[in-house]
Amino acid sequence: MPTLVECVPNFSEGRRTEVIQQIIAQIRSVEGVKLLDYSADESHNRSVVTFIGEPEGVKEAAFRAAKKAAELINMEEHRGEHPRMGATDVIPFIPISDVTMEDCIRLARELGQRMGEELNIPVYLYEEAATRPERKNLANVRKGQYEGLKEAIKQHERQPDYGPQEMGKAGATAVGARPPLIAYNINLGTDDVNIAKKIAKAIRGSSGGFVSVKALGVLLEDRNIAQVTINMCNYKEVPLFRVFELVKSEAARYGVNVIGSEIVGLIPMEALLEVAEFYLRLEGFRKEQVLETRITE
Amino acid sequence: MPTLVECVPNFSEGRRTEVIQQIIAQIRSVEGVKLLDYSADESHNRSVVTFIGEPEGVKEAAFRAAKKAAELINMEEHRGEHPRMGATDVIPFIPISDVTMEDCIRLARELGQRMGEELNIPVYLYEEAATRPERKNLANVRKGQYEGLKEAIKQHERQPDYGPQEMGKAGATAVGARPPLIAYNINLGTDDVNIAKKIAKAIRGSSGGFVSVKALGVLLEDRNIAQVTINMCNYKEVPLFRVFELVKSEAARYGVNVIGSEIVGLIPMEALLEVAEFYLRLEGFRKEQVLETRITE
Repeated sequence: MPTLVECVPNFSEGRRTEVIQQIIAQIRSVEGVKLLDYSADESHNRSVVTFIGEPEGVKEAAFRAAKKAAELINMEEHRGEHPRMGATDVIPFIPISDVTMEDCIRLARELGQRMGEELNIPVYLYEEAATRPERKNLANVRKGQYEGLKEAIKQHERQPDYGPQEMGKAGATAVGARPPLIAYNINLGTDDVNIAKKIAKAIRGSSGGFVSVKALGVLLEDRNIAQVTINMCNYKEVPLFRVFELVKSEAARYGVNVIGSEIVGLIPMEALLEVAEFYLRLEGFRKEQVLETRITE
Repeated sequence: MPTLVECVPNFSEGRRTEVIQQIIAQIRSVEGVKLLDYSADESHNRSVVTFIGEPEGVKEAAFRAAKKAAELINMEEHRGEHPRMGATDVIPFIPISDVTMEDCIRLARELGQRMGEELNIPVYLYEEAATRPERKNLANVRKGQYEGLKEAIKQHERQPDYGPQEMGKAGATAVGARPPLIAYNINLGTDDVNIAKKIAKAIRGSSGGFVSVKALGVLLEDRNIAQVTINMCNYKEVPLFRVFELVKSEAARYGVNVIGSEIVGLIPMEALLEVAEFYLRLEGFRKEQVLETRITE
């Protein structure tokens, strides 16, 4: 496998298709970078773009996209439901294969510095790349949004990590590093949504469960079954099998079976290999034993 | 993922390093083909080479290697413990990724025909590519070995699928297609090798178990534990989890735990994804959801 970094920037444009296309064209213009997905939300007036590639290529693609967004998006005119502070609102780098979190933090710093110097955009490092504890949380970085930050940026505690301590029409950008997020749902053999809610409460960090797990109990109306819908924000710390087994155990308390589970969207190979390793009690297994990893070495 | 075929030819030379190197050089000379492994056995006087790549490249590499082997190896002078009938003794094609068994059977036929026509080597199609039921089994194809086949080839039932009905000094070659073989061991929490032997008997095809499974019970002297050592010859028909769960269940009959398992060598990604799917009870999972498969599309 080549070294692979994923990048999921969010841009403050979800309505003008031609603007979104021009930003995406910048990402596609970097050789070796592959666009995996993009989606635009009209009411949020925001687009989420997912691409992947070798670290330097991904960093370059993120820079070009941010430069184009600064040219085409005027935050003075931007309206939308989703909190935002810049034309390019957030840029997270995500380690996928043969890359460490430290590598991604370095990418965030290098990109942040370049955006500050060449594009004159204030940049805040966030999540794993944060330089202050309170900036790990994106909500703190983005507090007041574009309009509020125009004034607040002058305060010492809101000083950006790179770029000017004042806002232009492209606003400010949060650049950071985080583990891959896995969207994972577990379906229960019951239509009692309260059981799903109780299980969700037991496993999620906000109510004392696994720190990196977010979860809600919902009812799937079309199938008339309850579901625990989960965001796994750090699968290396809390793997899929641990969450699955805990949900199974909690469900059994109510005499309810786990009837299935679903992975929504993409997942790193390693997260599934760990599941096989766990249940087969594998000894001494290495990812390099997977045939497909050998062809692109 | 690109379309990937594996090829594991066996050559009747395990002593003269320079001969083995020249054969391998032919494989390396094809662009896009990746040599994964090779090993030479002196007492067998035989080498096993593993390479992988796109179908046409793999076929070309196999042809070039067979041509070189025919130039450098004289079967009149070959002595070794392992049964053999040709300088290139066997060439199996193995579907790995986005390739069907039918594709590999076609590769076997095309290579066999070319070897017959251009190299004047008798070729027998075997395993999944066999044209007669008795030729599925390599032992039948190779009966009498090089020395015996020189006469036997003249019989109607030993007529090759391609090439002349007579043997030159390069002998004859079996070309075929088969599923990937997974070497898989399951370790037991006992030093009683008889329990491992009973479990092996229960799971292997030769004594009525899974048709495509071979198994033996052995004692690991260094760890003083019994092991069921397994060759899984068709993981799509009989997946890893089914063998693991059956061994666990049979071991429990003797009050013995499965303490671990091992994958020896390489394994297709799909075989491990199926394990994760089984235990997580995944619904609607597709291999394309694995991030790493997207980069090389």
